[in-house]
Amino acid sequence: MQVDDMILVSVDDHVVEPPDLFDRHLPSKYRDIAPHVVHKEDGTDVWQFLEFEVPNIGLNAVAGRPPEEYGIDPTSFDEIRPGCFDIEKRILDMNANGVLGSLCFPSLPGFAGRLFAALDDKDSALALARAYNDWHIDEWCGTFPGRFIPLSVPTIWDPETMAAEVRRVAKKRCHAVTFPENPEPLGLPSLHSDHWDPFWPACSDEGTIVCMHIGSSSKLVTTAADAPIDVMIVLQPMNIVQAAADLIHSPVFRKFPEVTVALSEGGIGWIPYFLERLDHSYRVHKAWTGADFGTKLPSDVFLEHVVLCYISDPVGVQLARRIGIDRITVEVDYPHSDTTWPRAPERLMEEFASSDLRDGEIDRITHLNAMRFFRYDPFAHHPRERCTVGALRAEAIGVDTTPVPRGRRFPQRQGIKISDLSPTA
Amino acid sequence: MQVDDMILVSVDDHVVEPPDLFDRHLPSKYRDIAPHVVHKEDGTDVWQFLEFEVPNIGLNAVAGRPPEEYGIDPTSFDEIRPGCFDIEKRILDMNANGVLGSLCFPSLPGFAGRLFAALDDKDSALALARAYNDWHIDEWCGTFPGRFIPLSVPTIWDPETMAAEVRRVAKKRCHAVTFPENPEPLGLPSLHSDHWDPFWPACSDEGTIVCMHIGSSSKLVTTAADAPIDVMIVLQPMNIVQAAADLIHSPVFRKFPEVTVALSEGGIGWIPYFLERLDHSYRVHKAWTGADFGTKLPSDVFLEHVVLCYISDPVGVQLARRIGIDRITVEVDYPHSDTTWPRAPERLMEEFASSDLRDGEIDRITHLNAMRFFRYDPFAHHPRERCTVGALRAEAIGVDTTPVPRGRRFPQRQGIKISDLSPTA
Repeated sequence: MQVDDMILVSVDDHVVEPPDLFDRHLPSKYRDIAPHVVHKEDGTDVWQFLEFEVPNIGLNAVAGRPPEEYGIDPTSFDEIRPGCFDIEKRILDMNANGVLGSLCFPSLPGFAGRLFAALDDKDSALALARAYNDWHIDEWCGTFPGRFIPLSVPTIWDPETMAAEVRRVAKKRCHAVTFPENPEPLGLPSLHSDHWDPFWPACSDEGTIVCMHIGSSSKLVTTAADAPIDVMIVLQPMNIVQAAADLIHSPVFRKFPEVTVALSEGGIGWIPYFLERLDHSYRVHKAWTGADFGTKLPSDVFLEHVVLCYISDPVGVQLARRIGIDRITVEVDYPHSDTTWPRAPERLMEEFASSDLRDGEIDRITHLNAMRFFRYDPFAHHPRERCTVGALRAEAIGVDTTPVPRGRRFPQRQGIKISDLSPTA
Repeated sequence: MQVDDMILVSVDDHVVEPPDLFDRHLPSKYRDIAPHVVHKEDGTDVWQFLEFEVPNIGLNAVAGRPPEEYGIDPTSFDEIRPGCFDIEKRILDMNANGVLGSLCFPSLPGFAGRLFAALDDKDSALALARAYNDWHIDEWCGTFPGRFIPLSVPTIWDPETMAAEVRRVAKKRCHAVTFPENPEPLGLPSLHSDHWDPFWPACSDEGTIVCMHIGSSSKLVTTAADAPIDVMIVLQPMNIVQAAADLIHSPVFRKFPEVTVALSEGGIGWIPYFLERLDHSYRVHKAWTGADFGTKLPSDVFLEHVVLCYISDPVGVQLARRIGIDRITVEVDYPHSDTTWPRAPERLMEEFASSDLRDGEIDRITHLNAMRFFRYDPFAHHPRERCTVGALRAEAIGVDTTPVPRGRRFPQRQGIKISDLSPTA
């Protein structure tokens, strides 16, 4: 297979919500409480909501800027690449990267949608969440049919309305929902409680995949307050192993055997080691801990329920058959700093070329698995031959993907430490 | 290579200290303050020290018992296999497992030796630490020359005396010292501070390897208070990735380029993924974080300084060449619950047989690397042909290794959760 022949569906990108987010989908009675963008005196744009100011952090929208300008400072809409928030420009950026389909995680409400929970009046909170989901499904994803996999945010404060919202948006063909990798650090009951029991059957019934994105517990992985921020950057993705271990030992898959969970941005190179550790611990300790996976091993149960996702993962690709070709999907992570945009096809192919994967296996990893797990059918909208990397890039002639320096609004900070950060998302 | 031809040096086992630990090596003026064993009314044996009672936790001494009897309850000397604490019996258990050499981590003082720090009078604390090290080196390791790699505990409360103790015991041919995987959770300055600067050059000068054992930060890996204990059991070893990321981004290797660190019980299957993540983060973010590894990649620096250790690790063995054959050592973990005793040779060989490693590579992993990094020369004491699995097992004829049920002192607890544990070590 050549790079131009690949078909790429990315199950992890991000939308930076545009200022008109709530203009068309929120009943007018809630208009006054909706988050709105304020342009500050320092030149940054922030979302104002209740007593909060939610900045667009630079590191969340760095595609198309040189690494020297990456950072954790707030930014403004005129400093970030328009593809971050403008759907017409986003499609061009996807085409330039040869990407057919994209699932976009939220920025403003957080990965777990918990921003709206700050409202005491839960009717208002629900109205905002619904308006957000309608904007996301009808506008962001609806403008270019067949190009996006819609993803709803949960009304995380109430499992009953979560279930109702999963069912409501499923009627609009949205079959993916975000959920925190661990609810406990958010002050919510853990996966081991029965608190979430109304939510899971709604996902099973509607064929909705539950996307747990790295960092969605809002718990930063820290070693020491004075550790350089690089420690956190390295560890944050790998920390998904905690969610994986928590999930497999929770009652979720036993009680709701049709539930499927994606470990978004979780990577795959650690999976064989993790599964061996999982089975080893089970064999050694089940006699006294009471762990019980019936006639199966925990690794079997894990691979029956969990979808794996990676951006770039050389050793993981080499181990792909050992993991299970049918569980693996790819991600681009546009416009975050780990993104492979605009060279995702080349990066992916380089890793495939170092493996002995066959074309049929590559197709499963790059798009067929994503289509099945996310109930996404782009070929109903676009003939397959128009969906390849080569065909899409041909439509993006003239799209400039060279990094654009925009300068720094704030002086570059030296030696940023973990203690300089506060939890986000 | 056949199982009987292997030579095994285990760089991670554990000693359960016997009651006479402080009888012969502590100046008499400190005798009254030394920890001593008390046989309690409930039948358990505990060490009494100041206002503390330090139990021997069952899970720390389960070799030779059936898994049904594993648990976190306190135990007594007459319930645990004598090889845990009796050096004559230990040698027989090593022989029965075909193990030539063993490095034994402490139990009573904790992996980081911090028990003694509880004494306000630091002269007394130092006296206890020295006595402990003398017992360990002269008695535990000295009784059977050439069979043990001595390991000292640090006077963790004071880097100056730590350095002096490293130099003192080096004169007794002890060239390994424990150090916490992360000092900060112990209330001590992190690896990023200059607090430890007196310690590292002592290690460099004396050729002393620094052993960071999993769990030695005393920080349990928790996801949720009501998570079953299995979650912690699975995650605790994998959590060493945090220490690895912390260490490589600390100034230690830059300031003290001769320092070598062993990630004890850290496993190896996660290493390729970690190193790729490390280099990726560096390439993407160094321009703004200021991370600086000179002309090298962080993975190069890591592999120049870190020694890797595994008990059983099928995928890791398959990836051994990718990791670096010269950095890998093996462990038995006797008498902890992850131990492969008494079938370590068979387990190791099974994994080697599934790889394409050659005999010379297996020799490096099973003993040559350990001999080099730990400055251990068993062949000065025993001819090589007497050191193989087959030769040692021939000396253990009659040693009964079948699991011995001893019953439970306390009723088995159902559904033990993370919240039922308190930090140990």
